[in-house]
Amino acid sequence: MLRIAYFGPQGTFTEQAARALAPGEDLTPYETVRMALTAVREGAADAACVPIENSVEGVVPTTLDGLSDGDPLVAVAETILPIHFSVLTRPGGGEIRTVASHPHALAQVREWLEANLPGATVVASSSTASAAVGVVEGTYDAAVSAPVAIEHYALEELATGVADVHDAQTRFLLVRRPGELPEPTGADRTSIVAAAVNRTGTLAELLAELASRGINLTRLDARPTRNNFGEYRFFIDFEGHVAEPRIVSAMAALRRRCHLRFLGSHPRADDVAATVEPGAGNQDFVEAQAWVDAVLKGEGA
Amino acid sequence: MLRIAYFGPQGTFTEQAARALAPGEDLTPYETVRMALTAVREGAADAACVPIENSVEGVVPTTLDGLSDGDPLVAVAETILPIHFSVLTRPGGGEIRTVASHPHALAQVREWLEANLPGATVVASSSTASAAVGVVEGTYDAAVSAPVAIEHYALEELATGVADVHDAQTRFLLVRRPGELPEPTGADRTSIVAAAVNRTGTLAELLAELASRGINLTRLDARPTRNNFGEYRFFIDFEGHVAEPRIVSAMAALRRRCHLRFLGSHPRADDVAATVEPGAGNQDFVEAQAWVDAVLKGEGA
Repeated sequence: MLRIAYFGPQGTFTEQAARALAPGEDLTPYETVRMALTAVREGAADAACVPIENSVEGVVPTTLDGLSDGDPLVAVAETILPIHFSVLTRPGGGEIRTVASHPHALAQVREWLEANLPGATVVASSSTASAAVGVVEGTYDAAVSAPVAIEHYALEELATGVADVHDAQTRFLLVRRPGELPEPTGADRTSIVAAAVNRTGTLAELLAELASRGINLTRLDARPTRNNFGEYRFFIDFEGHVAEPRIVSAMAALRRRCHLRFLGSHPRADDVAATVEPGAGNQDFVEAQAWVDAVLKGEGA
Repeated sequence: MLRIAYFGPQGTFTEQAARALAPGEDLTPYETVRMALTAVREGAADAACVPIENSVEGVVPTTLDGLSDGDPLVAVAETILPIHFSVLTRPGGGEIRTVASHPHALAQVREWLEANLPGATVVASSSTASAAVGVVEGTYDAAVSAPVAIEHYALEELATGVADVHDAQTRFLLVRRPGELPEPTGADRTSIVAAAVNRTGTLAELLAELASRGINLTRLDARPTRNNFGEYRFFIDFEGHVAEPRIVSAMAALRRRCHLRFLGSHPRADDVAATVEPGAGNQDFVEAQAWVDAVLKGEGA
């Protein structure tokens, strides 16, 4: 059984993602994203499940920083969860005077609370799961939690599928130490972090290396380095797998231009096949290289 | 006196930024960033002060979305605040058993709390200011708050300048309805939001328009549109002022390539002068245009 670290506590969306990415494995919650990643780096866990981006809140900065600092880790799988909450109460709990959750969760169910629990006092908690614990202990009357919380606490579902914005979703990664890569599927995502000198046009040049090879970006985030504005690392996700000749060509070109770290190639959770531009398919790269090789040997022109 | 809306409540870093950006003006807190911006759009306020990016937490998604949706607003000034907290207690308050703040603030003072208040229970609150209110009311014994909070609440400073990461900072904007632009200073920042079709190489093409004119980016954020991954708006900040010929040339080129919204040109808070590449100064642009005009009139070749 694999030992899977996840950003806890128990009963959050990240646990739900870990169950989806590593069904039946041994899951252990860690207090922070950084601690879950450290567990993998130090060998206390075989892999870690961490959130990477949310369609409402944006990217998760601690995950980006945690992947780019320290020993290398690579993502080998991802999953996307819809962010729909359950509202949990004590069995036969009576009047709901207080409802608790993490401020981010409360912001995503504000309209639902106004419509369905208009009299309740809304209270901040440190996580959606700690709100559920607070209900068990009688501190609050209701918690806005991840659906998986019901499996840990003796509570009742007052409502499920609760969300003001119904298409909000979060993407999670399963990361481990570098090793065998997942097989290419034709619907893959490759992630890198690039640290280039702060010079006019640097990012344009990096992106041109991808664009000129017909490689489609799926995400780009600039994070300040050393906690200062003005100097940035670029987290770039694009379609394709590093085992493909077109991606190999792009990665080698980027490597010449900047400090580069590979963050993984793995199948996309949404199963969207890679766009391939005319003249930029893997066969085109292979044939072009073969032609140059032939020229070199005096066997063609 | 100008009516300045700010993302409240009273006693937060945003109020502190509003005082710096609009000293002596009439400041009114609004419950959300969106509500502060709406107050300006509807004429209830002359300008709004909102956070735009934090060196630890990254960009503020609600501000980006709030500026790109709805009627146009432009930034006319910015300020950068160091994020150092004050720990506030009741005067002569005795033992500190509970300390409260917003989870983001608590994450930034975790080490300080472990070293200085090791026995205290840490409690989440909905804002740094509501934690201070909780101390006034006796709910908590200490609050981790913005320094300005001491001016609103009858509390004592147990400590000031508290932060685990001492160079953490947040940048704030003062935005208003489109009108007269601030004068160019040579150390300006221009902000745009670009929505382009989802096609391989689009972002590389947009950035090449800036790079080929020697214009240096200061920030780039990709935000998913309509709450879905895969389709993005790009928030781009670069050096220079839209009143400069080199910036005019770039903005017109971008306008041909994508849906573009101007988010303002204003002096940089850090006073860093714009990088100008050889052949890409304003005088170069003016002289080049004059040469083409002369060719057109048959007066040169």
